[in-house]
Amino acid sequence: MPETITLYTAKVCPYAHRVELALEEAGAPYKAYQIDLQNKPEWYAPKVNPASKVPAVAYGGPATLPESPSPESTKIAESLVLLEFVADLYPNSPLLPKDPVLRAKARFFIDAVGTKLNPKYFAFVHRGDAGGAEGLLQGIDDIQKLLPDEGYAVGKDYTIADAAVTPFLARMEISLKYDLGSFDVGEGVKVYETLQTDPKFARFRKYFNDSKARPSFQKTFDESYLVESYKKRYEAARAQKKKTD
Amino acid sequence: MPETITLYTAKVCPYAHRVELALEEAGAPYKAYQIDLQNKPEWYAPKVNPASKVPAVAYGGPATLPESPSPESTKIAESLVLLEFVADLYPNSPLLPKDPVLRAKARFFIDAVGTKLNPKYFAFVHRGDAGGAEGLLQGIDDIQKLLPDEGYAVGKDYTIADAAVTPFLARMEISLKYDLGSFDVGEGVKVYETLQTDPKFARFRKYFNDSKARPSFQKTFDESYLVESYKKRYEAARAQKKKTD
Repeated sequence: MPETITLYTAKVCPYAHRVELALEEAGAPYKAYQIDLQNKPEWYAPKVNPASKVPAVAYGGPATLPESPSPESTKIAESLVLLEFVADLYPNSPLLPKDPVLRAKARFFIDAVGTKLNPKYFAFVHRGDAGGAEGLLQGIDDIQKLLPDEGYAVGKDYTIADAAVTPFLARMEISLKYDLGSFDVGEGVKVYETLQTDPKFARFRKYFNDSKARPSFQKTFDESYLVESYKKRYEAARAQKKKTD
Repeated sequence: MPETITLYTAKVCPYAHRVELALEEAGAPYKAYQIDLQNKPEWYAPKVNPASKVPAVAYGGPATLPESPSPESTKIAESLVLLEFVADLYPNSPLLPKDPVLRAKARFFIDAVGTKLNPKYFAFVHRGDAGGAEGLLQGIDDIQKLLPDEGYAVGKDYTIADAAVTPFLARMEISLKYDLGSFDVGEGVKVYETLQTDPKFARFRKYFNDSKARPSFQKTFDESYLVESYKKRYEAARAQKKKTD
Protein backbone atom coordinates (compact mmCIF):
# COMPACT_ATOMS: atom_id res chain seq x y z
CA MET A 1 0.00 0.00 0.00
CA PRO A 2 1.60 3.29 -1.09
CA GLU A 3 2.23 5.94 1.56
CA THR A 4 0.77 9.44 1.64
CA ILE A 5 1.40 11.68 -1.33
CA THR A 6 1.42 15.46 -1.29
CA LEU A 7 1.61 16.94 -4.78
CA TYR A 8 2.87 20.50 -5.15
CA THR A 9 1.25 21.81 -8.28
CA ALA A 10 -0.04 24.92 -10.07
CA LYS A 11 -3.10 25.21 -12.30
CA VAL A 12 -1.18 26.91 -15.11
CA CYS A 13 1.61 24.32 -15.27
CA PRO A 14 1.24 21.55 -17.87
CA TYR A 15 4.10 19.57 -16.31
CA ALA A 16 2.37 19.48 -12.92
CA HIS A 17 -0.94 18.63 -14.61
CA ARG A 18 0.64 15.47 -16.02
CA VAL A 19 1.12 14.13 -12.52
CA GLU A 20 -2.38 15.07 -11.37
CA LEU A 21 -3.82 13.13 -14.30
CA ALA A 22 -1.73 10.08 -13.47
CA LEU A 23 -2.73 10.18 -9.80
CA GLU A 24 -6.42 10.49 -10.74
CA GLU A 25 -6.19 7.69 -13.28
CA ALA A 26 -4.51 5.45 -10.71
CA GLY A 27 -7.21 6.26 -8.17
CA ALA A 28 -4.43 7.33 -5.79
CA PRO A 29 -5.31 9.24 -2.64
CA TYR A 30 -3.26 12.45 -2.64
CA LYS A 31 -3.29 15.98 -1.38
CA ALA A 32 -2.79 18.72 -4.01
CA TYR A 33 -1.22 21.96 -2.84
CA GLN A 34 -1.23 24.98 -5.16
CA ILE A 35 2.05 26.87 -5.48
CA ASP A 36 1.79 30.45 -6.72
CA LEU A 37 4.54 30.43 -9.34
CA GLN A 38 4.71 34.22 -9.45
CA ASN A 39 5.19 34.40 -5.72
CA LYS A 40 6.61 31.15 -4.43
CA PRO A 41 6.49 30.54 -0.69
CA GLU A 42 9.88 30.84 0.98
CA TRP A 43 9.82 27.30 2.35
CA TYR A 44 9.26 25.70 -1.05
CA ALA A 45 12.81 25.52 -2.44
CA PRO A 46 14.58 24.55 0.80
CA LYS A 47 11.94 22.09 2.00
CA VAL A 48 10.53 20.57 -1.17
CA ASN A 49 12.31 21.21 -4.47
CA PRO A 50 15.69 22.99 -4.64
CA ALA A 51 14.98 23.71 -8.34
CA SER A 52 11.92 25.64 -7.08
CA LYS A 53 9.67 24.21 -9.80
CA VAL A 54 6.42 22.28 -9.83
CA PRO A 55 5.54 19.46 -9.91
CA ALA A 56 7.14 17.93 -6.85
CA VAL A 57 5.91 15.22 -4.52
CA ALA A 58 6.49 14.63 -0.82
CA TYR A 59 6.10 10.90 -0.33
CA GLY A 60 5.68 9.08 2.97
CA GLY A 61 6.82 10.21 6.40
CA PRO A 62 4.57 11.44 9.18
CA ALA A 63 1.37 13.37 8.38
CA THR A 64 2.07 17.11 8.19
CA LEU A 65 0.60 20.22 6.66
CA PRO A 66 1.83 20.69 3.06
CA GLU A 67 3.40 23.99 4.17
CA SER A 68 5.74 22.20 6.58
CA PRO A 69 6.63 18.90 4.95
CA SER A 70 8.53 16.44 7.11
CA PRO A 71 12.27 15.96 6.48
CA GLU A 72 11.40 12.25 6.73
CA SER A 73 9.31 12.25 3.57
CA THR A 74 11.04 11.67 0.23
CA LYS A 75 10.89 14.61 -2.14
CA ILE A 76 10.67 13.76 -5.83
CA ALA A 77 10.68 16.20 -8.74
CA GLU A 78 10.44 16.22 -12.56
CA SER A 79 7.16 15.39 -14.26
CA LEU A 80 8.33 12.36 -16.25
CA VAL A 81 10.07 10.89 -13.21
CA LEU A 82 6.80 11.34 -11.32
CA LEU A 83 4.66 9.75 -14.04
CA GLU A 84 6.81 6.62 -13.81
CA PHE A 85 6.73 6.84 -10.01
CA VAL A 86 2.93 6.83 -9.92
CA ALA A 87 2.88 3.90 -12.36
CA ASP A 88 5.38 2.07 -10.11
CA LEU A 89 3.32 2.76 -6.97
CA TYR A 90 0.20 1.43 -8.69
CA PRO A 91 1.50 -1.43 -10.83
CA ASN A 92 -2.01 -2.85 -11.25
CA SER A 93 -3.41 0.39 -12.64
CA PRO A 94 -3.53 0.71 -16.46
CA LEU A 95 -0.96 3.55 -16.35
CA LEU A 96 1.66 1.36 -17.99
CA PRO A 97 0.99 -1.87 -19.90
CA LYS A 98 2.67 -5.05 -18.66
CA ASP A 99 4.20 -5.90 -22.03
CA PRO A 100 7.76 -4.49 -22.36
CA VAL A 101 7.19 -3.64 -26.03
CA LEU A 102 4.06 -1.61 -25.24
CA ARG A 103 5.86 0.08 -22.36
CA ALA A 104 8.59 1.07 -24.81
CA LYS A 105 5.93 2.45 -27.17
CA ALA A 106 4.48 4.55 -24.34
CA ARG A 107 7.92 5.97 -23.54
CA PHE A 108 8.71 6.59 -27.20
CA PHE A 109 5.44 8.53 -27.46
CA ILE A 110 6.43 10.61 -24.41
CA ASP A 111 9.79 11.30 -26.02
CA ALA A 112 8.03 12.48 -29.19
CA VAL A 113 5.82 14.82 -27.15
CA GLY A 114 8.96 16.42 -25.72
CA THR A 115 10.96 16.57 -28.93
CA LYS A 116 8.40 16.96 -31.72
CA LEU A 117 5.24 18.57 -30.34
CA ASN A 118 6.20 20.78 -27.41
CA PRO A 119 9.02 22.73 -29.10
CA LYS A 120 6.52 23.63 -31.86
CA TYR A 121 3.89 24.64 -29.32
CA PHE A 122 6.36 26.88 -27.49
CA ALA A 123 7.63 28.38 -30.77
CA PHE A 124 4.15 29.35 -31.98
CA VAL A 125 2.26 30.18 -28.79
CA HIS A 126 4.97 31.45 -26.44
CA ARG A 127 7.38 33.05 -28.88
CA GLY A 128 5.30 33.76 -31.98
CA ASP A 129 8.09 32.54 -34.27
CA ALA A 130 7.71 33.00 -38.02
CA GLY A 131 6.26 29.85 -39.60
CA GLY A 132 5.02 28.79 -36.19
CA ALA A 133 1.50 27.88 -37.31
CA GLU A 134 2.70 25.36 -39.91
CA GLY A 135 5.26 24.07 -37.44
CA LEU A 136 2.62 23.42 -34.81
CA LEU A 137 0.32 21.63 -37.24
CA GLN A 138 3.30 19.49 -38.26
CA GLY A 139 4.05 18.70 -34.61
CA ILE A 140 0.44 17.64 -34.04
CA ASP A 141 0.54 15.48 -37.12
CA ASP A 142 3.77 13.85 -35.91
CA ILE A 143 1.99 12.85 -32.70
CA GLN A 144 -1.16 11.83 -34.57
CA LYS A 145 0.89 9.45 -36.74
CA LEU A 146 2.03 7.58 -33.64
CA LEU A 147 -1.56 6.90 -32.54
CA PRO A 148 -3.08 3.50 -33.22
CA ASP A 149 -6.37 3.48 -35.19
CA GLU A 150 -8.42 3.39 -32.00
CA GLY A 151 -8.09 4.21 -28.33
CA TYR A 152 -5.18 5.99 -26.71
CA ALA A 153 -1.47 6.30 -27.44
CA VAL A 154 -0.65 2.62 -26.91
CA GLY A 155 -4.05 0.92 -26.88
CA LYS A 156 -7.40 0.92 -25.14
CA ASP A 157 -6.08 2.22 -21.81
CA TYR A 158 -5.16 5.80 -20.97
CA THR A 159 -1.50 5.52 -19.89
CA ILE A 160 1.31 7.82 -18.79
CA ALA A 161 1.89 8.46 -22.51
CA ASP A 162 -1.48 10.18 -22.70
CA ALA A 163 -1.04 11.92 -19.35
CA ALA A 164 2.20 13.36 -20.75
CA VAL A 165 0.51 15.03 -23.72
CA THR A 166 -3.03 15.97 -22.62
CA PRO A 167 -1.98 18.99 -20.48
CA PHE A 168 -0.07 20.54 -23.37
CA LEU A 169 -2.88 19.96 -25.87
CA ALA A 170 -5.43 21.44 -23.48
CA ARG A 171 -3.40 24.60 -22.91
CA MET A 172 -2.63 24.87 -26.59
CA GLU A 173 -6.34 24.64 -27.38
CA ILE A 174 -7.15 27.56 -25.10
CA SER A 175 -4.45 29.70 -26.67
CA LEU A 176 -5.74 28.91 -30.15
CA LYS A 177 -9.50 29.13 -29.45
CA TYR A 178 -9.26 32.46 -27.61
CA ASP A 179 -6.41 33.69 -29.80
CA LEU A 180 -4.17 34.22 -26.77
CA GLY A 181 -0.51 33.82 -27.62
CA SER A 182 2.57 35.62 -28.92
CA PHE A 183 1.44 35.03 -32.52
CA ASP A 184 -0.17 37.78 -34.63
CA VAL A 185 -3.83 38.54 -33.88
CA GLY A 186 -6.09 36.04 -35.64
CA GLU A 187 -3.37 33.41 -36.21
CA GLY A 188 -4.41 31.29 -33.23
CA VAL A 189 -8.06 31.06 -34.25
CA LYS A 190 -7.00 30.10 -37.77
CA VAL A 191 -5.02 27.10 -36.49
CA TYR A 192 -7.89 26.24 -34.14
CA GLU A 193 -10.29 26.07 -37.08
CA THR A 194 -7.94 23.88 -39.10
CA LEU A 195 -7.69 21.47 -36.19
CA GLN A 196 -11.50 21.49 -35.76
CA THR A 197 -12.46 20.90 -39.38
CA ASP A 198 -9.61 19.58 -41.55
CA PRO A 199 -10.20 15.86 -42.26
CA LYS A 200 -6.43 15.40 -41.95
CA PHE A 201 -6.75 15.88 -38.18
CA ALA A 202 -9.78 13.62 -37.61
CA ARG A 203 -7.78 11.02 -35.69
CA PHE A 204 -6.19 13.69 -33.55
CA ARG A 205 -9.62 15.26 -32.78
CA LYS A 206 -11.08 11.95 -31.67
CA TYR A 207 -8.05 11.24 -29.50
CA PHE A 208 -8.04 14.64 -27.86
CA ASN A 209 -11.82 14.64 -27.30
CA ASP A 210 -11.66 11.19 -25.71
CA SER A 211 -8.86 12.40 -23.41
CA LYS A 212 -10.82 15.50 -22.39
CA ALA A 213 -13.98 13.50 -21.68
CA ARG A 214 -12.27 11.50 -18.95
CA PRO A 215 -13.13 12.24 -15.31
CA SER A 216 -9.39 12.63 -14.58
CA PHE A 217 -9.28 15.60 -16.94
CA GLN A 218 -12.61 17.08 -15.89
CA LYS A 219 -11.47 17.09 -12.29
CA THR A 220 -8.03 18.58 -12.85
CA PHE A 221 -8.48 21.22 -15.55
CA ASP A 222 -9.78 24.71 -14.78
CA GLU A 223 -10.44 26.24 -18.20
CA SER A 224 -11.78 29.61 -17.02
CA TYR A 225 -8.80 30.07 -14.71
CA LEU A 226 -6.43 29.49 -17.63
CA VAL A 227 -8.34 31.79 -19.97
CA GLU A 228 -8.05 34.60 -17.43
CA SER A 229 -4.40 33.85 -16.83
CA TYR A 230 -3.56 33.84 -20.57
CA LYS A 231 -5.57 37.03 -21.11
CA LYS A 232 -3.45 38.79 -18.53
CA ARG A 233 -0.24 37.40 -19.98
CA TYR A 234 -0.83 38.02 -23.69
CA GLU A 235 -3.13 41.03 -23.77
CA ALA A 236 -0.65 43.01 -21.68
CA ALA A 237 2.20 41.89 -23.96
CA ARG A 238 0.23 42.89 -27.07
CA ALA A 239 -0.66 46.30 -25.67
CA GLN A 240 3.03 46.79 -24.85
CA LYS A 241 4.03 45.75 -28.35
CA LYS A 242 1.49 48.10 -29.96
CA LYS A 243 2.83 51.01 -27.93
CA THR A 244 6.42 50.41 -29.03
CA ASP A 245 5.54 49.64 -32.69
CA MET B 1 12.20 -15.48 -21.89
CA PRO B 2 12.96 -12.37 -23.96
CA GLU B 3 13.14 -12.80 -27.74
CA THR B 4 16.16 -12.11 -29.95
CA ILE B 5 17.65 -8.64 -29.84
CA THR B 6 19.64 -6.99 -32.61
CA LEU B 7 21.21 -3.72 -31.50
CA TYR B 8 22.18 -1.21 -34.18
CA THR B 9 25.02 0.76 -32.68
CA ALA B 10 28.19 2.74 -33.45
CA LYS B 11 31.40 2.85 -31.44
CA VAL B 12 31.53 6.65 -31.38
CA CYS B 13 27.95 7.11 -30.16
CA PRO B 14 27.45 7.57 -26.40
CA TYR B 15 23.68 7.09 -26.73
CA ALA B 16 24.13 3.69 -28.35
CA HIS B 17 26.80 2.77 -25.79
CA ARG B 18 24.22 3.24 -23.02
CA VAL B 19 22.17 0.39 -24.41
CA GLU B 20 25.18 -1.90 -24.89
CA LEU B 21 26.09 -1.39 -21.23
CA ALA B 22 22.56 -2.23 -20.10
CA LEU B 23 22.43 -5.38 -22.25
CA GLU B 24 25.80 -6.51 -20.91
CA GLU B 25 24.81 -5.80 -17.31
CA ALA B 26 21.58 -7.76 -17.78
CA GLY B 27 23.51 -10.66 -19.27
CA ALA B 28 21.22 -10.43 -22.29
CA PRO B 29 22.09 -12.33 -25.44
CA TYR B 30 22.16 -9.82 -28.32
CA LYS B 31 23.71 -9.19 -31.67
CA ALA B 32 25.47 -5.83 -32.10
CA TYR B 33 25.62 -4.42 -35.61
CA GLN B 34 27.85 -1.42 -36.32
CA ILE B 35 26.32 1.38 -38.36
CA ASP B 36 28.76 3.71 -40.08
CA LEU B 37 27.25 7.07 -39.13
CA GLN B 38 29.16 8.90 -41.85
CA ASN B 39 27.86 6.55 -44.48
CA LYS B 40 24.66 4.93 -43.33
CA PRO B 41 23.44 1.90 -45.25
CA GLU B 42 20.42 2.65 -47.43
CA TRP B 43 18.22 0.07 -45.73
CA TYR B 44 18.73 1.53 -42.26
CA ALA B 45 16.14 4.35 -42.17
CA PRO B 46 13.34 2.52 -44.02
CA LYS B 47 13.83 -0.83 -42.31
CA VAL B 48 15.00 0.04 -38.80
CA ASN B 49 14.81 3.65 -37.64
CA PRO B 50 13.10 6.36 -39.72
CA ALA B 51 15.04 8.94 -37.69
CA SER B 52 18.17 7.28 -39.07
CA LYS B 53 19.97 7.40 -35.72
CA VAL B 54 21.55 4.84 -33.43
CA PRO B 55 20.77 3.18 -31.10
CA ALA B 56 17.85 1.15 -32.38
CA VAL B 57 16.77 -2.37 -31.56
CA ALA B 58 15.01 -4.98 -33.65
CA TYR B 59 13.20 -7.18 -31.17
CA GLY B 60 11.68 -10.60 -31.84
CA GLY B 61 10.43 -11.96 -35.15
CA PRO B 62 12.16 -14.64 -37.22
CA ALA B 63 15.96 -14.91 -37.24
CA THR B 64 17.45 -12.76 -40.01
CA LEU B 65 20.69 -11.07 -40.88
CA PRO B 66 20.92 -7.61 -39.27
CA GLU B 67 21.12 -6.13 -42.78
CA SER B 68 17.66 -7.41 -43.65
CA PRO B 69 15.61 -7.20 -40.47
CA SER B 70 12.21 -8.84 -40.59
CA PRO B 71 9.11 -6.60 -40.82
CA GLU B 72 7.77 -8.86 -38.05
CA SER B 73 10.30 -7.70 -35.49
CA THR B 74 9.48 -4.64 -33.41
CA LYS B 75 11.81 -1.69 -33.98
CA ILE B 76 12.51 0.48 -30.95
CA ALA B 77 14.60 3.66 -30.85
CA GLU B 78 15.81 6.30 -28.37
CA SER B 79 18.47 5.40 -25.82
CA LEU B 80 16.44 6.12 -22.68
CA VAL B 81 13.44 4.21 -24.01
CA LEU B 82 15.81 1.31 -24.68
CA LEU B 83 17.41 1.43 -21.22
CA GLU B 84 13.95 1.03 -19.67
CA PHE B 85 13.12 -1.66 -22.23
CA VAL B 86 16.14 -3.75 -21.27
CA ALA B 87 15.27 -3.31 -17.59
CA ASP B 88 11.68 -4.40 -18.36
CA LEU B 89 12.86 -7.45 -20.32
CA TYR B 90 15.12 -8.44 -17.42
CA PRO B 91 13.13 -7.49 -14.32
CA ASN B 92 15.30 -9.67 -12.10
CA SER B 93 18.53 -7.98 -13.18
CA PRO B 94 19.82 -5.16 -10.96
CA LEU B 95 19.24 -2.62 -13.77
CA LEU B 96 16.41 -0.99 -11.82
CA PRO B 97 15.74 -1.39 -8.10
CA LYS B 98 12.37 -2.81 -7.04
CA ASP B 99 11.57 0.08 -4.69
CA PRO B 100 9.56 2.83 -6.46
CA VAL B 101 11.45 5.55 -4.58
CA LEU B 102 14.83 4.21 -5.72
CA ARG B 103 13.51 3.84 -9.26
CA ALA B 104 12.50 7.49 -9.12
CA LYS B 105 16.01 8.39 -7.93
CA ALA B 106 17.52 6.49 -10.85
CA ARG B 107 15.31 8.38 -13.30
CA PHE B 108 15.99 11.71 -11.63
CA PHE B 109 19.71 11.01 -12.01
CA ILE B 110 19.21 10.26 -15.71
CA ASP B 111 17.30 13.52 -16.09
CA ALA B 112 20.21 15.37 -14.45
CA VAL B 113 22.69 13.76 -16.86
CA GLY B 114 20.63 15.10 -19.76
CA THR B 115 19.97 18.56 -18.36
CA LYS B 116 22.99 19.39 -16.17
CA LEU B 117 26.00 17.41 -17.38
CA ASN B 118 25.62 16.78 -21.11
CA PRO B 119 24.85 20.35 -22.20
CA LYS B 120 28.07 21.41 -20.43
CA TYR B 121 30.05 18.63 -22.04
CA PHE B 122 28.77 19.60 -25.51
CA ALA B 123 29.42 23.30 -24.84
CA PHE B 124 33.06 22.74 -23.85
CA VAL B 125 34.16 19.80 -25.97
CA HIS B 126 32.03 20.09 -29.11
CA ARG B 127 31.60 23.86 -29.37
CA GLY B 128 34.49 25.30 -27.33
CA ASP B 129 32.20 27.91 -25.74
CA ALA B 130 33.75 30.64 -23.60
CA GLY B 131 33.66 29.63 -19.91
CA GLY B 132 33.17 26.04 -20.99
CA ALA B 133 35.82 24.57 -18.67
CA GLU B 134 34.21 25.98 -15.51
CA GLY B 135 30.80 24.98 -16.84
CA LEU B 136 31.88 21.39 -17.36
CA LEU B 137 33.43 21.13 -13.89
CA GLN B 138 30.16 22.51 -12.48
CA GLY B 139 28.15 19.94 -14.42
CA ILE B 140 30.34 17.13 -13.08
CA ASP B 141 29.93 18.48 -9.56
CA ASP B 142 26.13 18.58 -10.03
CA ILE B 143 26.19 14.88 -10.87
CA GLN B 144 28.67 14.11 -8.09
CA LYS B 145 26.32 15.70 -5.54
CA LEU B 146 23.59 13.26 -6.47
CA LEU B 147 25.82 10.25 -5.72
CA PRO B 148 25.42 8.43 -2.43
CA ASP B 149 28.58 8.11 -0.26
CA GLU B 150 29.32 4.68 -1.68
CA GLY B 151 28.50 2.57 -4.69
CA TYR B 152 26.69 3.70 -7.80
CA ALA B 153 24.06 6.35 -8.55
CA VAL B 154 21.32 4.79 -6.46
CA GLY B 155 23.14 2.19 -4.32
CA LYS B 156 25.36 -0.83 -4.54
CA ASP B 157 24.11 -1.97 -7.94
CA TYR B 158 25.04 -0.52 -11.32
CA THR B 159 21.67 0.52 -12.80
CA ILE B 160 20.33 2.24 -15.90
CA ALA B 161 21.20 5.52 -14.16
CA ASP B 162 24.89 4.61 -14.37
CA ALA B 163 24.58 3.19 -17.88
CA ALA B 164 23.11 6.56 -18.90
CA VAL B 165 26.14 8.56 -17.78
CA THR B 166 29.18 6.28 -18.21
CA PRO B 167 29.37 6.62 -22.03
CA PHE B 168 29.46 10.41 -21.82
CA LEU B 169 32.05 10.47 -19.05
CA ALA B 170 34.24 8.03 -20.96
CA ARG B 171 34.15 10.10 -24.16
CA MET B 172 34.68 13.29 -22.21
CA GLU B 173 37.75 11.78 -20.55
CA ILE B 174 39.34 10.97 -23.89
CA SER B 175 38.72 14.49 -25.16
CA LEU B 176 40.27 15.98 -22.03
CA LYS B 177 43.20 13.58 -21.63
CA TYR B 178 44.31 13.82 -25.26
CA ASP B 179 43.26 17.47 -25.54
CA LEU B 180 40.95 16.70 -28.44
CA GLY B 181 38.02 19.09 -28.60
CA SER B 182 36.85 22.45 -29.90
CA PHE B 183 38.41 24.20 -26.89
CA ASP B 184 41.71 26.08 -27.09
CA VAL B 185 44.88 23.93 -27.14
CA GLY B 186 45.82 22.88 -23.59
CA GLU B 187 42.40 23.59 -22.05
CA GLY B 188 41.28 19.98 -22.14
CA VAL B 189 44.36 18.66 -20.34
CA LYS B 190 43.94 21.33 -17.69
CA VAL B 191 40.41 20.15 -16.87
CA TYR B 192 41.64 16.54 -16.97
CA GLU B 193 44.26 17.31 -14.34
CA THR B 194 41.75 19.07 -12.11
CA LEU B 195 39.48 16.03 -12.28
CA GLN B 196 42.45 13.71 -11.55
CA THR B 197 43.85 15.55 -8.56
CA ASP B 198 41.44 18.05 -6.98
CA PRO B 199 40.13 16.63 -3.68
CA LYS B 200 36.77 18.20 -4.57
CA PHE B 201 36.29 15.53 -7.23
CA ALA B 202 37.35 12.51 -5.14
CA ARG B 203 33.86 11.03 -5.02
CA PHE B 204 33.42 11.50 -8.75
CA ARG B 205 36.80 9.83 -9.44
CA LYS B 206 35.91 6.79 -7.38
CA TYR B 207 32.53 6.52 -9.05
CA PHE B 208 33.90 6.82 -12.57
CA ASN B 209 36.77 4.42 -11.91
CA ASP B 210 34.38 1.84 -10.47
CA SER B 211 32.18 2.19 -13.55
CA LYS B 212 35.12 1.79 -15.91
CA ALA B 213 36.41 -1.30 -14.08
CA ARG B 214 33.23 -3.25 -14.81
CA PRO B 215 33.34 -6.01 -17.44
CA SER B 216 30.36 -4.37 -19.19
CA PHE B 217 32.47 -1.30 -19.87
CA GLN B 218 35.66 -3.19 -20.72
CA LYS B 219 33.79 -5.19 -23.32
CA THR B 220 31.99 -2.28 -24.97
CA PHE B 221 34.49 0.58 -25.04
CA ASP B 222 37.15 0.88 -27.68
CA GLU B 223 39.43 3.67 -26.45
CA SER B 224 41.96 3.57 -29.26
CA TYR B 225 39.19 3.69 -31.88
CA LEU B 226 37.79 6.81 -30.24
CA VAL B 227 41.18 8.49 -29.90
CA GLU B 228 41.75 8.03 -33.63
CA SER B 229 38.27 9.23 -34.44
CA TYR B 230 38.59 12.36 -32.27
CA LYS B 231 42.04 13.08 -33.70
CA LYS B 232 40.61 13.13 -37.18
CA ARG B 233 37.67 15.29 -36.14
CA TYR B 234 39.47 17.91 -34.06
CA GLU B 235 42.93 18.06 -35.55
CA ALA B 236 41.46 18.75 -38.97
CA ALA B 237 39.18 21.43 -37.49
CA ARG B 238 42.12 23.04 -35.69
CA ALA B 239 44.29 23.05 -38.81
CA GLN B 240 41.41 24.65 -40.70
CA LYS B 241 40.95 27.25 -37.97
CA LYS B 242 44.68 28.08 -37.95
CA LYS B 243 44.64 28.59 -41.71
CA THR B 244 41.75 31.05 -41.54
CA ASP B 245 43.02 32.93 -38.44
